[in-house]
Amino acid sequence: MITVLKSTATPEQREHLIRWLESQNVQVHISEGSEYTVLGLVGDTGHIDIELLESLDMVDSVKRVSEPFKKVNRKFHPDDSVISAGGVPIGGGHFQVIAGPCSVETREQIIGVAEAVKASGATLLRGGAFKPRTSPYAFQGLHAEGLELLREARAQTGLPIVTELMNMRDFDLFADVDVIQVGARNMQNFDMLRELGRTDKTILLKRGLANTLQELLMSAEYIMAGGNENVILCERGIRTFETYTRNTLDLSAVPVLHELSHLPVVVDPSHATGHASLVPSMAVAAAACGADGLMIEVHNDPIHALCDGAQSLTPAQFDALMGQVRRVREAVLS
Amino acid sequence: MITVLKSTATPEQREHLIRWLESQNVQVHISEGSEYTVLGLVGDTGHIDIELLESLDMVDSVKRVSEPFKKVNRKFHPDDSVISAGGVPIGGGHFQVIAGPCSVETREQIIGVAEAVKASGATLLRGGAFKPRTSPYAFQGLHAEGLELLREARAQTGLPIVTELMNMRDFDLFADVDVIQVGARNMQNFDMLRELGRTDKTILLKRGLANTLQELLMSAEYIMAGGNENVILCERGIRTFETYTRNTLDLSAVPVLHELSHLPVVVDPSHATGHASLVPSMAVAAAACGADGLMIEVHNDPIHALCDGAQSLTPAQFDALMGQVRRVREAVLS
Amino acid sequence: MITVLKSTATPEQREHLIRWLESQNVQVHISEGSEYTVLGLVGDTGHIDIELLESLDMVDSVKRVSEPFKKVNRKFHPDDSVISAGGVPIGGGHFQVIAGPCSVETREQIIGVAEAVKASGATLLRGGAFKPRTSPYAFQGLHAEGLELLREARAQTGLPIVTELMNMRDFDLFADVDVIQVGARNMQNFDMLRELGRTDKTILLKRGLANTLQELLMSAEYIMAGGNENVILCERGIRTFETYTRNTLDLSAVPVLHELSHLPVVVDPSHATGHASLVPSMAVAAAACGADGLMIEVHNDPIHALCDGAQSLTPAQFDALMGQVRRVREAVLS
Amino acid sequence: MITVLKSTATPEQREHLIRWLESQNVQVHISEGSEYTVLGLVGDTGHIDIELLESLDMVDSVKRVSEPFKKVNRKFHPDDSVISAGGVPIGGGHFQVIAGPCSVETREQIIGVAEAVKASGATLLRGGAFKPRTSPYAFQGLHAEGLELLREARAQTGLPIVTELMNMRDFDLFADVDVIQVGARNMQNFDMLRELGRTDKTILLKRGLANTLQELLMSAEYIMAGGNENVILCERGIRTFETYTRNTLDLSAVPVLHELSHLPVVVDPSHATGHASLVPSMAVAAAACGADGLMIEVHNDPIHALCDGAQSLTPAQFDALMGQVRRVREAVLS
Repeated sequence: MITVLKSTATPEQREHLIRWLESQNVQVHISEGSEYTVLGLVGDTGHIDIELLESLDMVDSVKRVSEPFKKVNRKFHPDDSVISAGGVPIGGGHFQVIAGPCSVETREQIIGVAEAVKASGATLLRGGAFKPRTSPYAFQGLHAEGLELLREARAQTGLPIVTELMNMRDFDLFADVDVIQVGARNMQNFDMLRELGRTDKTILLKRGLANTLQELLMSAEYIMAGGNENVILCERGIRTFETYTRNTLDLSAVPVLHELSHLPVVVDPSHATGHASLVPSMAVAAAACGADGLMIEVHNDPIHALCDGAQSLTPAQFDALMGQVRRVREAVLS
Repeated sequence: MITVLKSTATPEQREHLIRWLESQNVQVHISEGSEYTVLGLVGDTGHIDIELLESLDMVDSVKRVSEPFKKVNRKFHPDDSVISAGGVPIGGGHFQVIAGPCSVETREQIIGVAEAVKASGATLLRGGAFKPRTSPYAFQGLHAEGLELLREARAQTGLPIVTELMNMRDFDLFADVDVIQVGARNMQNFDMLRELGRTDKTILLKRGLANTLQELLMSAEYIMAGGNENVILCERGIRTFETYTRNTLDLSAVPVLHELSHLPVVVDPSHATGHASLVPSMAVAAAACGADGLMIEVHNDPIHALCDGAQSLTPAQFDALMGQVRRVREAVLS
Repeated sequence: MITVLKSTATPEQREHLIRWLESQNVQVHISEGSEYTVLGLVGDTGHIDIELLESLDMVDSVKRVSEPFKKVNRKFHPDDSVISAGGVPIGGGHFQVIAGPCSVETREQIIGVAEAVKASGATLLRGGAFKPRTSPYAFQGLHAEGLELLREARAQTGLPIVTELMNMRDFDLFADVDVIQVGARNMQNFDMLRELGRTDKTILLKRGLANTLQELLMSAEYIMAGGNENVILCERGIRTFETYTRNTLDLSAVPVLHELSHLPVVVDPSHATGHASLVPSMAVAAAACGADGLMIEVHNDPIHALCDGAQSLTPAQFDALMGQVRRVREAVLS
Repeated sequence: MITVLKSTATPEQREHLIRWLESQNVQVHISEGSEYTVLGLVGDTGHIDIELLESLDMVDSVKRVSEPFKKVNRKFHPDDSVISAGGVPIGGGHFQVIAGPCSVETREQIIGVAEAVKASGATLLRGGAFKPRTSPYAFQGLHAEGLELLREARAQTGLPIVTELMNMRDFDLFADVDVIQVGARNMQNFDMLRELGRTDKTILLKRGLANTLQELLMSAEYIMAGGNENVILCERGIRTFETYTRNTLDLSAVPVLHELSHLPVVVDPSHATGHASLVPSMAVAAAACGADGLMIEVHNDPIHALCDGAQSLTPAQFDALMGQVRRVREAVLS
């Protein structure tokens, strides 16, 4: 860690700061310049409160030289991690497509969609039973009943299931869920991450709407620091000023996360764009830039089907997309 | 609610959509234009899934005419709410200043700061015992011990205490906390909001880093919908591209929230700016534009005091600020 | 255009507004609801000042039903436009790669890079002679001499040249430039757009750092409204809170612009990401999602070559990328 | 300037880089750490291309220790600048209010508003004659005729005039304009800034919608570097995800710009919020946090007056606001 002191710092202030740093078990190397003094901090700087340090008046800036994350860091784990998602491997060359409806609604619906997406090549089934909703008056999901319907669809099709947990109090209901999704709004629910870190469930961790990639990795670190190394990262769009799309899908997240971490990266173009017509091109682009998987909404219910629209694809649209994704992946890998 | 249909919608599609809407107990008034058809939906439209409707291909746009929030809405509650914060009234002309250190560290620290801020006119004491930290390796607060020290400071000074709850599992520890803070990262932790709505604690709800004012009000609605009407809103800066300040303090939130809602609005300039030198001017500006209170970080520990900086003010700086705030409030109200 | 009036509007206010609208040559259809009144405006609403209308207290909201752009609109020009870039066609299935250094520096440099990128399959040469720089003290480009070197490189290789114009006063110097680039910072320099609209030069119009896709199309409309239909759109990243990449490349711009407009869309992953290591994956993703072309920085100068880094690719990296792009395009089109 | 090299840099790469830096007339001080090497660059680093340096693979990060701006820098000019705006001083304790309509429309309108705002205490008159409009089909202003009407209003009331220049080709028309406004969309029109730097006109420079405060100061530096020191800075809101207000007014810009620069800072709450009901509280807040002036839209035309709304205040609302602003300034200064 490097700390640049302002030239206005008095010798007493500097001395005081250096003693405080040393009391925290780091060695301090001083390098004087005419306009600045650089303190090089060596040792276990992970405990130093960088925000406190930065906020001191005598400090111009603080710069971490080593990343603040360890377990997720590719430097200490050069090979891609291959994570098991209910027996299906993801990462390290294993590409998987998670598909299904936004919410689980009925037995017919979830089993119908599961069979359709499986036939097109999806390898995991998604569907929400607990739904985070901006309004307390909106439909919040079928809860335990929804999880039961997902299990039936899994029994019928063999597809492992991915579904969102919003609250550790419901954790027991998720005992046999294959992949637990942590939603964008819970990406920095640190207590939840820490508790999931003490389980052995595979976690799909979605990037928050206003979170940097480094913050996403720090949240993954929370889970891994507890001992649970089964983490899949998911880019699903960030909040910007653009209003045509629901969010702005940040596909550069894929190569950046691959540079910084060994964990697999999945892309969700359905939530990111909010328009079915944009999903196929963004899905193909994600496959082209190296994503380890996709998460795609597919529906078969009449109100959607009628209108041939929505952020969800029809089974036929999904089937066409799967062919394109396969060809693009072959082209990139060849 | 108004739904604009595209001219490309077929009569069958329109008919299908109208029947679906009517099945949800809303009346549909049709108004035909040459380029568009407008459906006016009358009745209890709160259950209509606006995102689903918007996402249909045949739908150009959907516009709520009535706001989606009810209990927080000034329309149905024209007078300002006055909320009790441990016996101290806030809102409706009652202006309060919450002050104290970022984290509770030692008995001497918290009692020393509490006495100092009380002497300068603060009416509530803040201090973090459970700290949301981006890194799992950073100091996470003193937890139960920190709460105990806050209670001691309250006993000593009579100041009611405000502190953050990160997890409902810790709720019992907060039984005699006067005001429970829901942090920015938990603003859309809907399950937590719903559970807090079933308690009678006063809640200080901070705006999330990427959340609109309408979303903040919807989160307050979650708490109030459960029966707990003791909600204080807090603007604390949003995330933008500007890097000089830690966040961008959105002071227009104060008059906007006052237009839309009867709940009191507090401003936290310390977290928003991240620099002590900016706190006084932003605090005074907040008082000038009608905030019902301020939340200010004040420290008395040597590493901060040494440097006369950080986002925390010294007791002397805080004292000077309090005088300015008083004069500005008098000027605005006169 | 649809205008929703608040229920608080008095009959006199409504009457007054309707008369004002009619005085502007639009017909007004009134549709009354219990909570709102909808005014449907029919006729040439292009002259109505939507911001003024929106800002009236009696108006809840205003919604354009038809897009505000005409000449760029795919509705009135369903087929893709094919634009000539110095004789090279772009759009409508014609995919082109524009490559070259950030700035023109020396004869050796620009001719060397031009020959290298041509050998790898680039079809246009880029290079900055006039450079927009945040600091007045930074290198601003070789100006006329840079343009002369670009012409020499074109003579040598046959590649048409693309370079940025910052000021109409320099326009005469650009007389034989094949494609004039309007940079992100000039995207809303409306006078410049209008003047370029009166020329017959092919314009590469870059999206501004904080501009929506609709604003980009409105700026293209400025050029086309003057009679110049030779416009190529370029996505080059927008400004967000993420700091790992220089900007956030918004690839969903490609399918969105293709839906709304018939103009070709080029993607510049070099400026968007700011890191050479991210350029290839973003270039391949852009090709996969249907971009009509790429704009890639390639260098051959020692300070870059030494470090094998920067946002510019080496000729060898560029060559490898071109192969990948070709294979991905074949896969998508097959 | 400090450059941190990665530990992966080879000795040859380091040597090469250091020689390149020295060839640019800076001295390089090397400070070795176990995980990093810090290069301290001393001398005139203003010519070093920081973006190029940062983009090299061997470079971890580059940090300017001295700000990149000189003429605008408070360090080299500790006292507040007092700028003459047509004889009216602004800055250094001189607070001025610029008021008037958005666009100049008729003689009656501009003279009527000018007289009204003068009576309430405004000291400068604003009004747009050249209007930057997103759409080429919208009203673009009265141009020369609008400037003539402004001159008449000045003759009538004695108020100096402030109006926007969009294009240096129109500069001669602005010969006797007192303050030339550079709009948000032209904040990085570097050629225009450079040309204005060679004049002696007072320039009101508005912050761009996506520009940092440092970029605003660099644009002011462009003007001052040419010899024109008559620059007034203006905060007018930045673009964020919030949609309730037109832009997000960043009032922390006021104390930040005052810390970094000696130039006066004016705040425009009308464009920032887009709603008349929010203008007074934001104007008062701006006055409270130390702004050197305000820029307020005031109208007297029937379509606005009818509706008692819009982002423009009525003369009566403006008059009430002026009283509040005066009282708040007295309170802050006392």
